[in-house]
This record gives sequence, structure tokens and C-alpha cells, in this order.
Amino acid sequence: MAEPAFDAVEVIRTKRDGGVLSDAQIDWVIDAYTRGVVADEQMAALAMAVLLRGLSAAELARWTAAMVASGERLDLSGVNRPTADKHSTGGVGDKITLPLAPLVAACGVAVPQLSGRGLGHTGGTLDKLESIPGWRAVLTSAEFRHQLDEVGAVVCAAGDGLAPADRKLYALRDVTGTVESIPLIASSIMSKKIAEGASALVLDVKVGTGAFMKDLASARELAETMVGLGTGHGVRTVALLTDMNTPLGRTAGNALEVAEALEVLAGGGPSDVVELTLALAREMLSAAGVPGVDPSDALRDGRAMDVWRRMIDAQGGDPDARLPVARERHVVTAPASGMLARLDALAVGVAAWRLGAGRARKEDRVSATAGVLMLAKPGDEVRSGAPLLELHTDDPARIDRALAALEGAYDIGARYQPVPLVLDRVG
Amino acid sequence: MAEPAFDAVEVIRTKRDGGVLSDAQIDWVIDAYTRGVVADEQMAALAMAVLLRGLSAAELARWTAAMVASGERLDLSGVNRPTADKHSTGGVGDKITLPLAPLVAACGVAVPQLSGRGLGHTGGTLDKLESIPGWRAVLTSAEFRHQLDEVGAVVCAAGDGLAPADRKLYALRDVTGTVESIPLIASSIMSKKIAEGASALVLDVKVGTGAFMKDLASARELAETMVGLGTGHGVRTVALLTDMNTPLGRTAGNALEVAEALEVLAGGGPSDVVELTLALAREMLSAAGVPGVDPSDALRDGRAMDVWRRMIDAQGGDPDARLPVARERHVVTAPASGMLARLDALAVGVAAWRLGAGRARKEDRVSATAGVLMLAKPGDEVRSGAPLLELHTDDPARIDRALAALEGAYDIGARYQPVPLVLDRVG
Repeated sequence: MAEPAFDAVEVIRTKRDGGVLSDAQIDWVIDAYTRGVVADEQMAALAMAVLLRGLSAAELARWTAAMVASGERLDLSGVNRPTADKHSTGGVGDKITLPLAPLVAACGVAVPQLSGRGLGHTGGTLDKLESIPGWRAVLTSAEFRHQLDEVGAVVCAAGDGLAPADRKLYALRDVTGTVESIPLIASSIMSKKIAEGASALVLDVKVGTGAFMKDLASARELAETMVGLGTGHGVRTVALLTDMNTPLGRTAGNALEVAEALEVLAGGGPSDVVELTLALAREMLSAAGVPGVDPSDALRDGRAMDVWRRMIDAQGGDPDARLPVARERHVVTAPASGMLARLDALAVGVAAWRLGAGRARKEDRVSATAGVLMLAKPGDEVRSGAPLLELHTDDPARIDRALAALEGAYDIGARYQPVPLVLDRVG
Repeated sequence: MAEPAFDAVEVIRTKRDGGVLSDAQIDWVIDAYTRGVVADEQMAALAMAVLLRGLSAAELARWTAAMVASGERLDLSGVNRPTADKHSTGGVGDKITLPLAPLVAACGVAVPQLSGRGLGHTGGTLDKLESIPGWRAVLTSAEFRHQLDEVGAVVCAAGDGLAPADRKLYALRDVTGTVESIPLIASSIMSKKIAEGASALVLDVKVGTGAFMKDLASARELAETMVGLGTGHGVRTVALLTDMNTPLGRTAGNALEVAEALEVLAGGGPSDVVELTLALAREMLSAAGVPGVDPSDALRDGRAMDVWRRMIDAQGGDPDARLPVARERHVVTAPASGMLARLDALAVGVAAWRLGAGRARKEDRVSATAGVLMLAKPGDEVRSGAPLLELHTDDPARIDRALAALEGAYDIGARYQPVPLVLDRVG
């Protein structure tokens, strides 16, 4: 087929001048960029124009569809039960996928979760699972299908065939200051999720200091945009807006978070992690057409733990292996007595990152053992001199920089204002 | 020296969000881009942010200074007379440099004119001069100095050492839809002109269909911006705003325009070309500190022609050689009788370009002979069936596309409203 009569400069100029891109222009520019016909510098200029000029709802729907169409779309209609997927926009201590996927599977809905690795201060689900000895993130297509049918839950790396336009554009946006655009964020997330083929999708849109969206209004706009895109592609989509001013649970790190997930699967664990796991599970079951089930039963009676063990085992992991432990620990003590009123999610996330739990560049390796253990959470009474945080790392040279990140990260004795964990629901 | 603590993404985000770039950020990003440390896609995003957010006067001054500082700045203080340079923002039939440079030199002011090649519908001065057999555009630094002292006028190609940041950025803007930005245009032109070292500079800012600036307000803004930048760098700078709704003179093409320039140097030629040549010459002489001289004398008495002949000869050209002539000619006749009320500059420029006089891409070759001869200009009476335009080309296959460009390009019998050629003066 001959190249259509489009020109990247014309497309860029249209958006730059506040115009509306035609369906054909959008289809062409996404496809041509994926094929390398539109150059990185051209897409960078277009991304900046989109960031500053916006996309209409119709443009965004087409843009997302073109990103989906840049690769394959999985067909999960042959799976032997309904399917539901979950996506979090990323937070500190957000290990929810770990108990959630086996829990939902235990309630009769298959969870095909293709995940990414962490970048910056938010951890990646694959990085966390890789702290389990033997566990592997990469599955063949056949292994993925087999596990989905047999176990009901798969958490693995997304293949290169899904939304390749997004993979290219995501890397480009990262280096060109064009990340912070609601249409570009929404189309990036949703093109991958739509390509993954689940028939229902629950979005956990984080709001607060440790999240990408710092205020409720922009989080709601992102949530509504994504729900609209999912619904438009025939995926039953709902979103919860959840607080991320405080880290989730009592751990931020890789093996540390796996251990906490195991507590939840054993029927215990921190109340906020349990609450959000159950809230998301109910949404996933409902969106998948299985509304009457109470998922808390499956945590209590061990069914969720059974699925977890089979899920880890199916991907080469040993569910009974001991998780690795950091060689060095540094305790941060409370400077005063009183109620812990605030513990900042971003500061804890950056500290965990600097201890080795996260990566600054894609090619960096993460430490399985590094992270932060929170011995008190907001609302807890602490005594002066008592342990507040425990920093874990294999590299003691990292502790000073982690401590610097924690300066001003908590208040003791100030007025504590409890905030609901689930702030709103969209869908 | 260690790389300073700047990050391209931080610089891009500052401008993207409407902030002011610091001097150090500007110095760093221009230098790092020149050295390849800042990537093309990063500079493309920054250029789009600059286009949409603007630069303050202080930012623009620093940006331009950084572009000058990316290469060498010629020191012409040793030249044996005052120096003055001229720059046109580009128009159709704009051969003014050809008679102007020798004319000003004949009046005692040296003209060091480093020129470019044409791209799109506006021709380049070097392309025009290269239609003279033997003439060469590239001089060594020593040849340039020697000719400036001995002849007083040099029109040659700018070396790679002047404002290399601009050369890179100019090529990038061309493919990323970031050309149409007054700060980026002004800094591109002025960084080159400042680096060229003349102590006086006259800008010919074109306004109209055949020009980059379509309206007087934006042309005035560009002119004021450039005059401010030149003055700030110690260059006495003035600008004329001149009409470019109608082509200049009766020719658009390479050898065709050289022939017309020779008519002017011989004391004849079209009145508009003579008028603008003299107006610009007076400004250059005045800016160079030689205000009392009437340049029209030097056209009449042959002194300008003498300098032209020495200028062409010094660069290997034969001033007595016959100029090449097109193999094919196609006459466009007037469809009605009456006064020619309008002849559109852009249409004539595009027709000349399509006949072979211009290039679509930098690596294209131009035809010396191709172009458009205008047998009538607005204000002339024409008779139905009489020749109006003559299309010249060596490639008859190009004539149909040139004719297509000329559809609707002229009006006969409508009200003719004469427009002054020089619309305003800034400086």
C-alpha cells in the first residue's frame, strides 16, 4: 500500500494551532511512528502540542484505538470463566495486586494481569514477585493461557506484541517532559489494558503526595477519561479513587511487600491493605458479572492462599521458600511522644527507592531486600525514642541519602485527621 | 569540566509550564544540544513549548547569545572601512542583495554577506549567483578577508563554524512543526548575523502572501524583536517592513534574477527593485556611519557595476559570460483586457519552484534556468490574449504543475489599489 498523503509536520501543526486531528491523521501518525516513518523528534513535538492543547474526547478515543491497533489484542473469550483485570496508577507500598489476583480467582473470576516494572519511587509488581526464589515473570502465550485456565490468576510481563506504539511513546515521553498529560496518560494505560483482552477492568487511581495525581480533581478527570475509553472499547470499566498521601500498609520494598501480602492472604495483615484488597475484589467480581460473592470469606478460609501458592508455583517460584532479608537495618526513632499524625507517602517511596528497592533508569537492577518497614502509621501513638521506621538495605552507603529523603516526612502530636482510603468511585 | 547539574527534562518542564528559564539553563541546553548531549527529541519538545509559551525578552536575549556562543564570532574590526550587512526574511523575486552589495561597497562601506540557499518557494542568493558560470560560493576565511578589503563586497556561503547550534536547530524545526515562532525565528536569524561580525545590520522584513509573515503586526513584532537583539549585541540594527504580496521585479528564478540585477546595476531595471535597493542602501550607509552619500549616483555612473564585476571575478565567476537559458518556454496569456490588479507572490514563487528554481529538500539541486518572467505587473494594462507570464524550464513535464500553482493567482480589471513598497521602518 502506498503511504497515505499525510505529512508529520501537517499533523503537528494542526494540533499546535489548536485544531482537531482527523481520524485518518491519528491512525496514520500512530502507525507511522510505530514503524519509524515518523521520527522521535516529530512525535516529541506532537506530544508537547497534545500536552499543551489537549485532545477532544473523540480524538482521544481514536488515538487510544490506534495504539491498541498498533499490535495484537488478546482474545480471552476461550477462557473457562469470566475475566477481570486491575490497574493501579502507582503508589507507595501498593502491593494490592499480590493478594488481589489470587483472591478474585478464588471467587471464580480469572485474573490475567500483565504488569510492568517500577520506575522512580513507585515499585513494580514484577519486581516484588521476583524476590520469590525461582519465580519468573516471562511466560509464553501458551503458558499464560494454560495458567489462566488451570489456576485462574496470572501476573506476568506484558509481551512485546501488545500496544507497541505505547511502549515507544512511553519511553519518549519519559525523556521529553511530556508525561504529565491526562490524555497521554489515559491512552497509554488503556491501550495496554484493552489490548490485554479482559472483559472487565477495575482502575485504582491514586491521589496524593505519593501518587502521580496530586489532587482529587485531576485524579477524577483521569479516572473518568479512562472509564470512558474502556467502556468505548467494550470493556466494563470502573475506577476507585484512593488515598496516597500515606503509604499503603507497613512496608515499601520488594520482599518486604511480598511478606505483607502473605499476611493478608493468611487472613491478617494491615487493615488498609485488607480494606483496599476487598474493595477492589468486590468491584472486579461485580464488573465480571459475579456480584453476590463476599471475597472476605476466601481470605479467611485459605482459598485465596491456595490460589496464590499454585500461581507462584506455576511460574517456577517456591511458595515455601524463605524470602531474602537485608544485611543492614537502620532504625529511625520517634523524636517525641504523641500521636503520629502524618507519614508522607512520597518521602517513604523515595527513601525505599534510594535504599535500592527501585530503579532510576530502566536498565537498573533492583534489590529484593531493600525497603522501609513502618512500625507506626498515622493514628498510632508513639513514644519518644521508640522505633518509628526501619530502613532495610544491603548497601549501608545508601542509608544517609534515604534518611535525607525522610526529613520532614512525619508529624508527631499534631492534629490527626483520618482520611477515608476509598475517596470516590467512577463508573 | 563536569556536566552541570541540569537535566533536559527539567528545562523542558519549566518552559512547558509557563515558567522562565534561567540564564544557566539556557546556556546549558543550547550548548548541550550542540554537543549532542541533549537529544533531538528533547529539543523538539522544548521548541514546541517555546513556540506555545513564548520567551521573555531576557530569555530570548540569552538564548540568542548562547546560539552565538555555540561557535566563533567573526572579528571584522581589522577591515579597512566600516561594515554593514543586510538580511531579508525571504520573498519571491527578491534579488536585492545582488545589486545592493556592490552598490553599498561602491559608496565606501564593506558588505560581508554570508548567505544561505533557498528552501521552498523563496530563492536563495547563493543559488542565484551560482547560475553565473564559474562562480563559487565557498571561500576560505583568508579569501573572505582579502576580498572584503580589496573589493568591499563578498556574498558567500556561511562556514560551519558560525552558530552551529542554529544550524542544528533550524533543521530540527523544519521537520517538527516549530518554525512559526517569532522568538525562534528571530534568534535563528540574529545569531547568524551577530556571529558574522558586521557592525551594522539592515533587516528587510517581508510582509504578505509570498512572505513568512502574512500580516503587518506579526512582521513588526519580528522586526522589533530582531532590532532589539542586534542592538543588545552592539550591532547597529534597523529594519524595513516591505510588501511581499506582489513579487519583486519581473523575474523569479536564478539566472533570470541575475539578469534583472544586471539591468539595475546598469542604471535601469524595474522601478520596485531599484526603489528597494536604494532604500536598503541608504539604511546600510547610515547605520555604518556614512550618512551623506546618495547611492543612486553609483548606479547611474557605473561604480556599482564595477564593484559587481570585481566581486564576481574574485569568486571565479565570469562577469561577461552568457547566462544559461531555459530549453522550454510556455506563455500564459491574459484571459481578458484591463488593468492587472493583482499578481500573487506566493503563487508565482510556487510556480518558479515547481519549474525547478527551488528545492523541496536540502539535498535537491536547483535549475539555473528555471523560473517565471512577469511580462506585466499590477498597475499595467493588459490586452486579452497578450502574454502575461512566461514559464521557463528545462523539463517540460514541470509546466502543468506550475500552471496549477498559478490558478487564481491574478485579477484583471478589478480595482487596483497601489501599496507602498516600504511599509514601515523599525529601529
